[in-house]
Amino acid sequence: MYRIGIDLGGTNIAVGIVGDDHRILAQISVPTLARRTPEAVIADMGDAVEAVLAQAGIAAGDCASIGIGSPGTCDSARGVVVRAYNLGWHEVPVCAMLTERFGLPARLSNDANCAALAEVVAGAARGCRNMVLITLGTGVGGGIILNGEIYAGMRSAGAELGHTLLVLDGEPCTCGRRGCWEAYASATALIRQTKQAAEAHPGSLLAAEAAQGITGRTAFRAAMEGDAAAQAVVDRYCEYVAAGLTDLVNALAPEMILLGGGISRQGEALLAPIREYVATHCFGQRQGAIPVIAAAQLGNEAGIIGAAAL
Amino acid sequence: MYRIGIDLGGTNIAVGIVGDDHRILAQISVPTLARRTPEAVIADMGDAVEAVLAQAGIAAGDCASIGIGSPGTCDSARGVVVRAYNLGWHEVPVCAMLTERFGLPARLSNDANCAALAEVVAGAARGCRNMVLITLGTGVGGGIILNGEIYAGMRSAGAELGHTLLVLDGEPCTCGRRGCWEAYASATALIRQTKQAAEAHPGSLLAAEAAQGITGRTAFRAAMEGDAAAQAVVDRYCEYVAAGLTDLVNALAPEMILLGGGISRQGEALLAPIREYVATHCFGQRQGAIPVIAAAQLGNEAGIIGAAAL
Repeated sequence: MYRIGIDLGGTNIAVGIVGDDHRILAQISVPTLARRTPEAVIADMGDAVEAVLAQAGIAAGDCASIGIGSPGTCDSARGVVVRAYNLGWHEVPVCAMLTERFGLPARLSNDANCAALAEVVAGAARGCRNMVLITLGTGVGGGIILNGEIYAGMRSAGAELGHTLLVLDGEPCTCGRRGCWEAYASATALIRQTKQAAEAHPGSLLAAEAAQGITGRTAFRAAMEGDAAAQAVVDRYCEYVAAGLTDLVNALAPEMILLGGGISRQGEALLAPIREYVATHCFGQRQGAIPVIAAAQLGNEAGIIGAAAL
Repeated sequence: MYRIGIDLGGTNIAVGIVGDDHRILAQISVPTLARRTPEAVIADMGDAVEAVLAQAGIAAGDCASIGIGSPGTCDSARGVVVRAYNLGWHEVPVCAMLTERFGLPARLSNDANCAALAEVVAGAARGCRNMVLITLGTGVGGGIILNGEIYAGMRSAGAELGHTLLVLDGEPCTCGRRGCWEAYASATALIRQTKQAAEAHPGSLLAAEAAQGITGRTAFRAAMEGDAAAQAVVDRYCEYVAAGLTDLVNALAPEMILLGGGISRQGEALLAPIREYVATHCFGQRQGAIPVIAAAQLGNEAGIIGAAAL
């Protein structure tokens, strides 16, 4: 049996047909053009499903279900996107609309939850019962898998792990609160930290590279070339990430924590200092319940694979 | 059928016989005298079980199980107290020792987990599937119930909710880390905050009352009498508690959060400002997944009832 997975993003909608082995047989991507009505976006989503079915040479009836991974707050029980700021969606019953068109059961979850589920069924966390995936991107997203299933709490509103405190009354956060982990550990925050360090150290390699335009890679790249100002940014950024992961270890004691999102491509330059910080700061320190900490494996395919596995 | 519940504390061991309705039929308490060997303490625990069985007029064979709630890190799967600093215990197989004596299955969990389970089966959270109990005492303890069961993670090491960050690199914590929630929201922390405010405001009612000796009640009592310095301590303390609860709402979206421990006896003076803070700081603010926030109901009996329900 096949399953249809839809990864709904602010920029693109990726749709795939996924087999029982969680591999993607066929996929296509269409622009979201999020400023349109939800109805128009979902109509395009449906057209993309038909196109990918045709590409795979199968019919909707050959599929067991449609899964949708969406940004924002998603109520899985009702199949409704409650609030997705970057889509401009509010209370959109996406599951009912797709079921009506295709006659298939439709399931919905937050995109970070889908990515976490994908890693458990087909990626770096295969066989894991309790794990957390953290995406370090524009924001800091979280997906929690407990007993092999997505845990999202009341009205599926939980796992907003980027919005737990690092510094009470600290940096302003997009959520309206101050001091959230996201305000220190997102790529957006790293770019801000890089900019500040470049300004403070005008003679540094970091400043020279920053003058070309700053991304989440700038500080890591200049640090690799031996620049002290850049290394200080990287060191502190890794502490910010690791401090939040330490909280997750103390609260949830997962077997594994995976890092996804753009910053996770830094690999060991990011992971090694994080592992050391967690082992020296978690409850019980090196005798504590230290999880495996690694990079997520599935990259851009995680959204489709996880949505299909809902 | 009856169940035996044992609430092992640093000062006393409370043992009770609990009925199917989760009521305590008989109970006794004996001193822990924790500086002895674990074998001596567990022998006294067994004697207390025999005494309470005699008091209830039943035999061990009338009981389905023995449950133990212990401080420290408890590995429920192995029935072993891994580390309990205030008992001086390290890798103590308490379940095997009690099973050997009584021929009954024995189960073990952390005391805060037991208190949370007790509130779900017989207290303020009856019927709740997902809830968190926070004890505001000498430390800040946590018990997490997910899908109606204790969630403790790998090696039962999780739910150390007092050891999640409020302020990165902030006040020193007993766990060795800096800035943990416990270092701001425990009764110990409130006493420190009260002392500092009394010293800073020598003419205040707070200072006069503090001169008689400071407890977790001092600031709440002086605030109730209209003292501004005391009110400022209470306001800030409530923010500290509420900021940590807001993190729990964002991460786990529980249906209910219960507060236990000595400070929770302050009732609405504590709860009302906390509810307001959570509703204005959680993800989605007043449209967010705001749980019921209330005081725990079972007080000192929670340990026995929860241990028996393991």
